[in-house]
Amino acid sequence: MTVGEKGSKEIEIRRVKDGRRMDEKDHVAVESPLTIFFNEQELVTLLCSPRDLQYLALGFLRSEGLINGVDELEKVTLDQERSIVYVYAKEQGNLAEKLYGKRTITSGCGKGTVFFHALDSLQSKPVISALKVKGESLFTLMRALQERSLLFHATGGVHSAALAEEGQILVYSEDIGRHNAMDKIVGECLVRGISLHDRILLSSGRLSVEIVLKGAKMGLPLIVSRSAPTSLAVELADRMGITLVGFVRGSRFNIYTHEERIL
Amino acid sequence: MTVGEKGSKEIEIRRVKDGRRMDEKDHVAVESPLTIFFNEQELVTLLCSPRDLQYLALGFLRSEGLINGVDELEKVTLDQERSIVYVYAKEQGNLAEKLYGKRTITSGCGKGTVFFHALDSLQSKPVISALKVKGESLFTLMRALQERSLLFHATGGVHSAALAEEGQILVYSEDIGRHNAMDKIVGECLVRGISLHDRILLSSGRLSVEIVLKGAKMGLPLIVSRSAPTSLAVELADRMGITLVGFVRGSRFNIYTHEERIL
Repeated sequence: MTVGEKGSKEIEIRRVKDGRRMDEKDHVAVESPLTIFFNEQELVTLLCSPRDLQYLALGFLRSEGLINGVDELEKVTLDQERSIVYVYAKEQGNLAEKLYGKRTITSGCGKGTVFFHALDSLQSKPVISALKVKGESLFTLMRALQERSLLFHATGGVHSAALAEEGQILVYSEDIGRHNAMDKIVGECLVRGISLHDRILLSSGRLSVEIVLKGAKMGLPLIVSRSAPTSLAVELADRMGITLVGFVRGSRFNIYTHEERIL
Repeated sequence: MTVGEKGSKEIEIRRVKDGRRMDEKDHVAVESPLTIFFNEQELVTLLCSPRDLQYLALGFLRSEGLINGVDELEKVTLDQERSIVYVYAKEQGNLAEKLYGKRTITSGCGKGTVFFHALDSLQSKPVISALKVKGESLFTLMRALQERSLLFHATGGVHSAALAEEGQILVYSEDIGRHNAMDKIVGECLVRGISLHDRILLSSGRLSVEIVLKGAKMGLPLIVSRSAPTSLAVELADRMGITLVGFVRGSRFNIYTHEERIL
């Protein structure tokens, strides 16, 4: 059993079809733990697809509000063998208190804890963006997302996400967890200096309140998925000035909030 | 906007089809926070479908190893309006230390934190069970699961799970989170005194390592899903003596581990 480059692994299974049992090889998505140390404190262990682990760690820290940019960081090192990312901030400080105060556990695929009560953020400032996008562009972008998600086709167990602008995908990621996929994008944007302002988030997975929350924190004005949103995701998007589009399939989609951005 | 009995909510959306925009009503799955207090300590806030909240709270506590049975409990109360379940154990004790030690965040839909390193449990004892099930029974059971999941049909965003024996579903649950759906079953079994020994877990969702972990802790010998397992789920099931069956669709399925239980 070797881990493929695409994050899948070949294993031996018995396939049963019409009552007959056959020995076959199959691919399953690799799930593995990633532990993040922040300023020498063990922060959290995520279960994720073992790719882009530094992006994931940085995106997680950014999404949780522990860092704002790479300029705050001293050093980031990956211990590939033990699957640990060490992040050192220039400014030391015990952040554990802040973290362990309130915890909301998610309903979503992908890492579960948001370290504050989800609804607190309803007090946050709405996203301001003049972005307008043609409806047809959404089909093109979601098709591009699907074409990129090779891993999903191989294993049936992986979510994909992308940062896009009208006409093209800028950053692509995939992970067994929806939230991890999004954090990998956030992390890659931090490292590569790509702005999320006026940009579009594409997701293959369900739009739960946490995805919208992450989007709101990043100032993303438009979130698009081929799946359904939850009630709380719709409420939050409405309050935060985010356009939420779901069920992009064939020649149709649903606009749940702030339709003014879709031309 | 009123919350339906089935955990879905009617909202107004714009449906776009072939370039035309129409005002329509649609149903989305309700996602709402549930806070669990254990012995007057705030333990965690889950995002979940607002049904069977007491079952969810008890199942969560059981899955996390904080309680073993209802006989240990003094009282369980639900504050429906504020969405809080208060659980009081007969034996008081500060369990926070135990909990806040190590945290693994999940890849899966459903609540995310397991309060210990997932891989620690590989030291646990394997499941001992003489259960054998005919392959055809799995089709029947998965069809029964699908028929019960009315909410899923309405909103496209909900997972279902069931405890079954060959021939029938015993306990059924659904939730926007896969893990929540499983914990609701664990909780209901605790309250109703239903044994999980020699029984089958059915799931509509992906089989991540956490689902297998929960199954192992409950002594479940057979876990069946219409979706894919992850690599770590397969490894854990193999070590823990659990039969893992995935991709039950039409007249076929895959056996990943311990095929001896499938006749």
